[in-house]
Amino acid sequence: MFTKTEIQRLRALREKKVREALGLFVVEGEKVVAELLAAGFAFKEIHATEVWTGRRTHAISEEDMARISHFPTPSSVLAVGRIHREPLPPGTLDHGLTLVLDGVQDPGNVGTLLRIADWYALDRVVLSTDSADLFSQKVINASKGSFARVKVHTATLAVALTGVRAPVLGCDLTGDNVHVLEPLHDAVLVIGSEGRGLSEVVRAAVTRFVTIPKFGQVDSLNAAVAAAVVCDNIRRNGRGP
Amino acid sequence: MFTKTEIQRLRALREKKVREALGLFVVEGEKVVAELLAAGFAFKEIHATEVWTGRRTHAISEEDMARISHFPTPSSVLAVGRIHREPLPPGTLDHGLTLVLDGVQDPGNVGTLLRIADWYALDRVVLSTDSADLFSQKVINASKGSFARVKVHTATLAVALTGVRAPVLGCDLTGDNVHVLEPLHDAVLVIGSEGRGLSEVVRAAVTRFVTIPKFGQVDSLNAAVAAAVVCDNIRRNGRGP
Repeated sequence: MFTKTEIQRLRALREKKVREALGLFVVEGEKVVAELLAAGFAFKEIHATEVWTGRRTHAISEEDMARISHFPTPSSVLAVGRIHREPLPPGTLDHGLTLVLDGVQDPGNVGTLLRIADWYALDRVVLSTDSADLFSQKVINASKGSFARVKVHTATLAVALTGVRAPVLGCDLTGDNVHVLEPLHDAVLVIGSEGRGLSEVVRAAVTRFVTIPKFGQVDSLNAAVAAAVVCDNIRRNGRGP
Repeated sequence: MFTKTEIQRLRALREKKVREALGLFVVEGEKVVAELLAAGFAFKEIHATEVWTGRRTHAISEEDMARISHFPTPSSVLAVGRIHREPLPPGTLDHGLTLVLDGVQDPGNVGTLLRIADWYALDRVVLSTDSADLFSQKVINASKGSFARVKVHTATLAVALTGVRAPVLGCDLTGDNVHVLEPLHDAVLVIGSEGRGLSEVVRAAVTRFVTIPKFGQVDSLNAAVAAAVVCDNIRRNGRGP
């Protein structure tokens, strides 16, 4: 039997300010918990009903789970992890492939971008402080386990992009054709928000604009889609699979 | 002043069964209405308050708009269009590039896929009858105007894919590498739902599996992301921009 306080604590972890205050986040659902466990994520607590066959730290009744759950149909497992935000030591972006998310506020897009970074084995993702919260359920769900595999740094981009020696690539409609990009082993790809594009400070740090050839009429591609197409071209032109 | 009946009619068009019964759909918001007008879409009705500077057929007060709107902050314009579902004559898929959506139920994904079809100037999209409703606001919003530019057919895929002479491409993890695909001027690319993948009948119609080279650990890419990367490779290997 869970105490009322404990139920309230677990429910309240849906709110960012509570997460930050406690340094903890929560994810609910068989699929997402299984994905993170498979990726080796070390949860602090795993609360599960009898139905759940995976690892658990606390047994919970279906009644208590229903009280905690934010789902219309409560799942059998809810897990709590520690929030850890990786700092970004100077010089880190000089080597390897980095994806920088500049104010990407849609959590589904952030999760999808982590999945893309994982697929293309980028060395890291840098999340601006005004992007969607990395520790929200929507971001983690959309990442399909990549949340636990991709190295994510949180940083103020004005600082992070200062003095970077690797080329800093941004997407626009008049840059170099990505289909004829030369091999890039060290590069930073910056992706802006859907609505607003790149912020001033990030745009100023771009050293090379690249363009995905367009054949039709629409103005732009979705941010995650554009990132994937650029990554596919960087990888095809660089190290082979 | 709008009558209560008129307000109820416009509100009720958010529901699919009402849309189907009346043969009409509704979109709300300055951005989406402007995008569709820019793409040449012929609305049946455009209800707008004084703030809206674009085309309108009916003036509406802010009070009435607030009654009709489903937004927390009502917008200045709400437009009604006629539902038209394009049939698919036999032989259509033999020529040009076709994107087939097999049970893609997430409306944001369907809209993003229309946008990708537009960007890569595919000849058409075929939507299975169990995909998200083309005439829902979420699909139309996510398409960024491509809803009005891309030719979309609705079809039962078991019928649509029978006897197609163009290669039918599906994505899996062990197919031909898309990075070395030869030029394809006629092709059908089938994309399944996120959760379930391709349906049995569609999988059976695939004549060639293709694979996006993976460098990392995640199992799959988002459906729209995968479609875009394959389209980018088909287009780069085929007709140049």
